[in-house]
Amino acid sequence: MDTLTTYRSIVGDMGKLASALSLLGWDQQTHMPTKGVAIRSQVTGKLSKMQFELLTSDELGTCLAELRTANGLSELERASVRRVGKDHDRNRAIPAELIEEQSIAQTQAQTAWIAARQASDFGAFRPHLEKMVGYARKFAEYYGYEEHPYDALLEDYEPGMTCRKLKAIIEPLRAELVPFLRQLMEKGTRPDASLLDGTFDAETQRRLCRRALEVIRYDFEAGGLADVAHPFTTTIGPGDVRITNRYLEAHLLSSVFGALHEGGHALYNQGMPEELYALGIARGSSNGIHESQSRMIENQVGRSLPFWTFFQPVLAEFFPQFKKAKAKDLYAAANVVSPSLIRVEADEVTYNFHIMVRFEIEAGLLDGSIDVADLPRLWNDAMKRYLGVVPPNDAQGVLQDVHWSMGYFGYFPSYMLGNLYAAQMFRTLRKELPTLDKSIQAGNFEPLLGWLREKVHRYGAAYEPQELMKRITGHELDGSHFVSYVTEKYGAIYRL
Amino acid sequence: MDTLTTYRSIVGDMGKLASALSLLGWDQQTHMPTKGVAIRSQVTGKLSKMQFELLTSDELGTCLAELRTANGLSELERASVRRVGKDHDRNRAIPAELIEEQSIAQTQAQTAWIAARQASDFGAFRPHLEKMVGYARKFAEYYGYEEHPYDALLEDYEPGMTCRKLKAIIEPLRAELVPFLRQLMEKGTRPDASLLDGTFDAETQRRLCRRALEVIRYDFEAGGLADVAHPFTTTIGPGDVRITNRYLEAHLLSSVFGALHEGGHALYNQGMPEELYALGIARGSSNGIHESQSRMIENQVGRSLPFWTFFQPVLAEFFPQFKKAKAKDLYAAANVVSPSLIRVEADEVTYNFHIMVRFEIEAGLLDGSIDVADLPRLWNDAMKRYLGVVPPNDAQGVLQDVHWSMGYFGYFPSYMLGNLYAAQMFRTLRKELPTLDKSIQAGNFEPLLGWLREKVHRYGAAYEPQELMKRITGHELDGSHFVSYVTEKYGAIYRL
Repeated sequence: MDTLTTYRSIVGDMGKLASALSLLGWDQQTHMPTKGVAIRSQVTGKLSKMQFELLTSDELGTCLAELRTANGLSELERASVRRVGKDHDRNRAIPAELIEEQSIAQTQAQTAWIAARQASDFGAFRPHLEKMVGYARKFAEYYGYEEHPYDALLEDYEPGMTCRKLKAIIEPLRAELVPFLRQLMEKGTRPDASLLDGTFDAETQRRLCRRALEVIRYDFEAGGLADVAHPFTTTIGPGDVRITNRYLEAHLLSSVFGALHEGGHALYNQGMPEELYALGIARGSSNGIHESQSRMIENQVGRSLPFWTFFQPVLAEFFPQFKKAKAKDLYAAANVVSPSLIRVEADEVTYNFHIMVRFEIEAGLLDGSIDVADLPRLWNDAMKRYLGVVPPNDAQGVLQDVHWSMGYFGYFPSYMLGNLYAAQMFRTLRKELPTLDKSIQAGNFEPLLGWLREKVHRYGAAYEPQELMKRITGHELDGSHFVSYVTEKYGAIYRL
Repeated sequence: MDTLTTYRSIVGDMGKLASALSLLGWDQQTHMPTKGVAIRSQVTGKLSKMQFELLTSDELGTCLAELRTANGLSELERASVRRVGKDHDRNRAIPAELIEEQSIAQTQAQTAWIAARQASDFGAFRPHLEKMVGYARKFAEYYGYEEHPYDALLEDYEPGMTCRKLKAIIEPLRAELVPFLRQLMEKGTRPDASLLDGTFDAETQRRLCRRALEVIRYDFEAGGLADVAHPFTTTIGPGDVRITNRYLEAHLLSSVFGALHEGGHALYNQGMPEELYALGIARGSSNGIHESQSRMIENQVGRSLPFWTFFQPVLAEFFPQFKKAKAKDLYAAANVVSPSLIRVEADEVTYNFHIMVRFEIEAGLLDGSIDVADLPRLWNDAMKRYLGVVPPNDAQGVLQDVHWSMGYFGYFPSYMLGNLYAAQMFRTLRKELPTLDKSIQAGNFEPLLGWLREKVHRYGAAYEPQELMKRITGHELDGSHFVSYVTEKYGAIYRL
């Protein structure tokens, strides 16, 4: 067997294990009975270990060493060697015992976090968080970095991103948006959302969300929609990209935007050709780029006037009380801004502030300038500075997210970057598809999907995010597009 | 690591792969989208191969060789070494290339069978069936046998069973039941089943079946109920034994008995202690014993008067038209006998005849006394002899079952043996629990389940079927108990 064939076979086997692991994970959240958890964690642990052994194997290392300088590879094969090669190097950099140790600490930290959040008791979580920060700092040293230990971790989620670059992105955003939010709240006219008051049957919402997903061209023959507590999208393979959602009877739009958000993620993976799967690069260019696809469908598309012009009669098919509702009133009601405590409930204007709070803290924890013990105070101070609100307790404050208990430091910025990438891409998209609003208004989402397939989806992880952005928009990430998008849109809605 | 530890670790890993494979299989029938089939077959193929490699590994062979003569093993450990050892030997007996060849032919034969059945064209399936018979005969030679090549295959499904023993079981059954059926049809009074006419909403049936499963003490926290085209039960692990079912709006009892049948299978696996899972013997003592558990709950329990005395008001909760129905009328309607063409729709009296037809043919194919080309004629002749009906076409005749296309020769007898084991066990059960009818009538299924747990479930595959039957009933299988059960029950219902 030649090296390329061996390489493709190892990567193919990793993909098969990844597919099984995705199904095991999806099932765990959707159908697994409570008493099935013990065997499930054993099975997942075993397959993960096999996957890790393949990824860090000498055999793969030998293939990679040869292929890195080989001629005659296709563009996608070269991309695969780059991305898989980076994963191989990074995973080999950490001693296996340390990974196992961290994984045990992670399980304990997660359990402790659940209890601590329930009791709103940061003190009970603190020693676990200190441990997780300790591991993150150790990992950063093993991975290596030039300037800031945080850079070493960011690389997992956002290749090429650094602490310095993030600060340069955040500073102008903060400078523009903090006063803009104050203006909105003080001088703007808050839209009337009372037409969304009421109780909305969950099963009818479920059918409505199915329709919304069909509308945006999500392919149900290559996926499915299941119920869960915390919605997510999972890729089991080409032709099997599943969405999950939840239905709150008091919050109709929550499920609709949940479906559009997850639908955006799913369209990305459904749009990746099989060759990307075979080469282990059927994933997002980065977490941020993946998030850009969900945010664009949810916000730039789903929270737009053309969308609601089309969607109002659809909504009325399922909930007849909206038969006489006006598109512009639904549009306005879907775009209420309100500074709040919880990230996952945040609107477009305030969402990024939640990320800035977390970024300040994470960077400080990594370089040692912040102590875990000070987190509740620092969190509340930052919330006050950015959003003007202060959590009444730690459950609604510093304890709200699961990420730190899992050791995911460096993950949060992806959410913000997703918003920024989406705004910048959408600007280009609108230029290149000048009739976009008309098609959306007519319920034709084919041009939109065609553009995304062509420019984003079909490349998967072949390009790193800044390279992809340059190819699509001509420029690396530039946060000013998001600022214009948000200030124009919400300035108009709030009649500033 | 000592040998026992190594052995338990290998068997444990096989169990983890088996669990993942079970989930992959369950999902394929329940939730997998159509376009997910390509990656699914790759993933399943890969994990199956890894499982096969572990089972046939030299390392396992070395452990087995040592443990077979070792002292100090627990009773369950010794049973594990016996059963896993047999699997190891049998799987090593077949050259790997032959298994791969057969597996490819199997996929082709299945595809051909689906098309041939649809077109009712035996000729199109014939060359594939000839191939599958050829492989079965080769496998039999590799496995080895004393008397009849069929014996070598029976061992997979029913350890210790032989062609000669089967003939000795079938002959008296046939001699008693063929004239009994004729008597029923000619002199009996067929019960009036018209109270079951109507259309019954599928969702209400689904809820009713859920209730029926709760009633028999199926543990939903260790399982679940999903929709499929062809119902089955799957064991993903201790604490995760899932049932599937289907709902025909014109046939209310079909789903109820389907649920009870699968429930019987599921109770068996839910009743196996974790140690059996860890030792690779958390499966039925044989296919026939597994089937006895489903048949007993479906027939001896579910098709009894005490059951319907309890269940009539439950049924009326879901379908109010049965509020005034009498238990004895429902009981009679659930026990109509009618010689028919299709095995899976057969009643208790005629079911075994369908198996006898298949057994005659399978034994003849294996020893070469029957040619595949003659099958349609032989099938129709045998149907006439046993059941007095002749299929109008091969789709409803020799092409009706999937088993042969998969190379499962020797499987069918398990269905009949299940009926016989169930009747014999139930006789003992009634003696040991003299108040059984009263508890069932009162909706208390705890004594029944307790007995099954104690006598059958907790042993899993620790004992081979005849040994288990001796432990439970004092005797090896004796078909006369089934004859008494059926002639008494149906003689009374048909007022002979």
